[in-house]
Amino acid sequence: MLPAEIIRAKRDGRNLPAEAIRALLDGYVAGKVQDYQMAAFCMAVFFRGMDDAETGALTLAMLRSGEVLDLSDLPGVKVDKHSTGGVGDKVSLALAPIAAACGVVVPMISGRGLGHTGGTLDKLEAIPGFEVNLTVERFREVLAATGACLIGQTDRLAPADRRLYALRDVTATVESIPLIAASIMSKKLAEGLDALVLDVKVGSGAFMKSRPEAERLARALCGIGTQMGKRVVALLTGMDEPLGRAIGNALEVKEAVELLRGGGPSDLVEVTLELAAEMIVLAGRAEGLAEARALAREAVASGRAFAKLLEIVRAQGGLAEALEDPARLPSGKGTCEVPAPRAGVVLSIEAEALGLAAVALGAGRARADERVDHGVGLVVSKKVGDRVEKGESLCTVHHGDLGRETPAEVVKRVLAAYAVGAGEPRKVPLLQGRIA
Amino acid sequence: MLPAEIIRAKRDGRNLPAEAIRALLDGYVAGKVQDYQMAAFCMAVFFRGMDDAETGALTLAMLRSGEVLDLSDLPGVKVDKHSTGGVGDKVSLALAPIAAACGVVVPMISGRGLGHTGGTLDKLEAIPGFEVNLTVERFREVLAATGACLIGQTDRLAPADRRLYALRDVTATVESIPLIAASIMSKKLAEGLDALVLDVKVGSGAFMKSRPEAERLARALCGIGTQMGKRVVALLTGMDEPLGRAIGNALEVKEAVELLRGGGPSDLVEVTLELAAEMIVLAGRAEGLAEARALAREAVASGRAFAKLLEIVRAQGGLAEALEDPARLPSGKGTCEVPAPRAGVVLSIEAEALGLAAVALGAGRARADERVDHGVGLVVSKKVGDRVEKGESLCTVHHGDLGRETPAEVVKRVLAAYAVGAGEPRKVPLLQGRIA
Repeated sequence: MLPAEIIRAKRDGRNLPAEAIRALLDGYVAGKVQDYQMAAFCMAVFFRGMDDAETGALTLAMLRSGEVLDLSDLPGVKVDKHSTGGVGDKVSLALAPIAAACGVVVPMISGRGLGHTGGTLDKLEAIPGFEVNLTVERFREVLAATGACLIGQTDRLAPADRRLYALRDVTATVESIPLIAASIMSKKLAEGLDALVLDVKVGSGAFMKSRPEAERLARALCGIGTQMGKRVVALLTGMDEPLGRAIGNALEVKEAVELLRGGGPSDLVEVTLELAAEMIVLAGRAEGLAEARALAREAVASGRAFAKLLEIVRAQGGLAEALEDPARLPSGKGTCEVPAPRAGVVLSIEAEALGLAAVALGAGRARADERVDHGVGLVVSKKVGDRVEKGESLCTVHHGDLGRETPAEVVKRVLAAYAVGAGEPRKVPLLQGRIA
Repeated sequence: MLPAEIIRAKRDGRNLPAEAIRALLDGYVAGKVQDYQMAAFCMAVFFRGMDDAETGALTLAMLRSGEVLDLSDLPGVKVDKHSTGGVGDKVSLALAPIAAACGVVVPMISGRGLGHTGGTLDKLEAIPGFEVNLTVERFREVLAATGACLIGQTDRLAPADRRLYALRDVTATVESIPLIAASIMSKKLAEGLDALVLDVKVGSGAFMKSRPEAERLARALCGIGTQMGKRVVALLTGMDEPLGRAIGNALEVKEAVELLRGGGPSDLVEVTLELAAEMIVLAGRAEGLAEARALAREAVASGRAFAKLLEIVRAQGGLAEALEDPARLPSGKGTCEVPAPRAGVVLSIEAEALGLAAVALGAGRARADERVDHGVGLVVSKKVGDRVEKGESLCTVHHGDLGRETPAEVVKRVLAAYAVGAGEPRKVPLLQGRIA
């Protein structure tokens, strides 16, 4: 089939045989299928969708466009977690050491922040000296020594996905469940995993705004996993307000440390422990989720999980002392408060708006080549359902020198994101579903 | 709006403001909007469509990408005809001189054959010496002197359409009514017309296979015309079997000459005179269609239309004597007959299959850079509804040296295109509708 015939078949709603999808992707990688043909194809997929077999074939073709790590010589079951991205989502920083402390091997390859969501790599780099660009050899060494290693994407894993994603970004073809699923899974499967836990965020601050959409994505992701012989579990978790209180790199590291020291905001703790329990079960370290939850809680309570984080940070060149004494982490130049405009209850907080406010402070990027200020961000003092007096602080703004907006402008953004008044707060459950 | 935002808006079913469409097209022409973005846009249009205002804006932007002829200093109303393409459609060859003989000024810019349909330029070039590549200056001179001039597309008229069409061809985005309509009208409006008659073919041998599809295209074309202040009339004409009897360049020229000499197949005569009548009315040369039909018939009967053709051919360098003595036109090397496999009635003829059989003989092109053999083609002796005895000839194959298939192979193709037997012939009306 010629590329135009493959595009036409998808356009007309026909299911494509695996060979056609492979031919298209391989041709794209080889330069025989052009960007404009892939763009038209992606738009046709946006409208017509792809079934599990097609999505699997696309994933496999992208996976095979690069190297696939083979970690089979490392003892233990390799389990990673992937989040579809939210605001204040610092789960990975605490989750990896908890799971590793419970005997799970965690080869975690993460991304950077773009748009309103943060990225684990930027958060890790808030720890002085922490190196996210390791060679594959060093990645294996750290993983073997500590049970977890957190690094960035390399050009060698699923390079077709990188190229296709860049194309989708400029052709309005990002928002397609099968394309998103294939993109996520091709990168994750290249890590040499045995199993994967997915945190599919749903809500106004997530990419998937509605529950049915999030469920469709979760099912597509699990479907690919099954086809590839990997165990995949997806949790649907709420992202209508920020997760925890901190938004911004060093601020989020501090909050993750609080969690590992037995504290931390309850919503963050709940999601982190539930994801940890899933990883522990998938790794065969517990019979069921109840036992696994207890193991995860014990790893935190005993201090073993925090010790594991320090061990990982040291292995990756980071200043572990900065975690024991968070004053040594980067911080902003100053702070200011966002006073409540009236007394009442916090009815809702637009997570996406707070994410963009943090970006405006310099905590994230509007373009991929921008620098990040690790010290700045927001710390939310009032969450949905909290009572507040007029003039009481809703949120603390940590500002610096790199921001694109002044602290006063950011205060306005934060104010606009809060709805305070009388009425029923829009509090949605945090754990909304589980798909396996 | 960024290109990706324009694409997204269309993808999500929103109507685009004229400025957005103009920005996209102008950006494309200027190299700021990329092929992959236009491909994604065209696919989004395929699924979401465009309303009259959007289609008009796209047409205008394509029109303005090049030169627009100004024929306003030439006296008379300038009216052209455009056909969406069929098999055996030699209407233009007879229509232009009939209309010109009735006082219509006919600036006709035509295309070449591609796929199963022929092109007027190839047919004209079957006349020895006929020059279709005139300068704009010479085009105006011939038009002023004879009232009609038939030339090929130039790179200077609607160049954006040419580029966009090539892109659509390799991205499976050709079959979109608004994109087809904008493509046709941008080229036609660049001719400096006052009015336009459209022959929208409908049936198995046409690009529009169904009546509702053809009507939608006709309405889109008329809608653009209205927006541009041009009067446009569209006739829907049947293309289930070939028009007339001849398929192939010189063979079709001969049939057009027969018509101008008072003969010719009745279906060809009917369509040609009806289109001529529409042109005559649009040019203000008759009060109504009845009067215009009478004028057109008289132009043929009196020999003035044929004389006009000879005048045009001479003005464009062609050997007019070859029309008076058709033996001087190119011919094939030999002929063979296609015998009816059984006695009965011709129930149907697949026009598209006969078009492709003529291409296989060398009368048309499979690729744009192929040469054409002007002498070869088919002459259908039996049309739908005709009785035939077993072994009687259905069609004569005129073959030459350039064919990609042997005469025997072409005979098989023709046989396969005919359904002969007992039953009700699939005879559909020729004039199926009129939209203005």
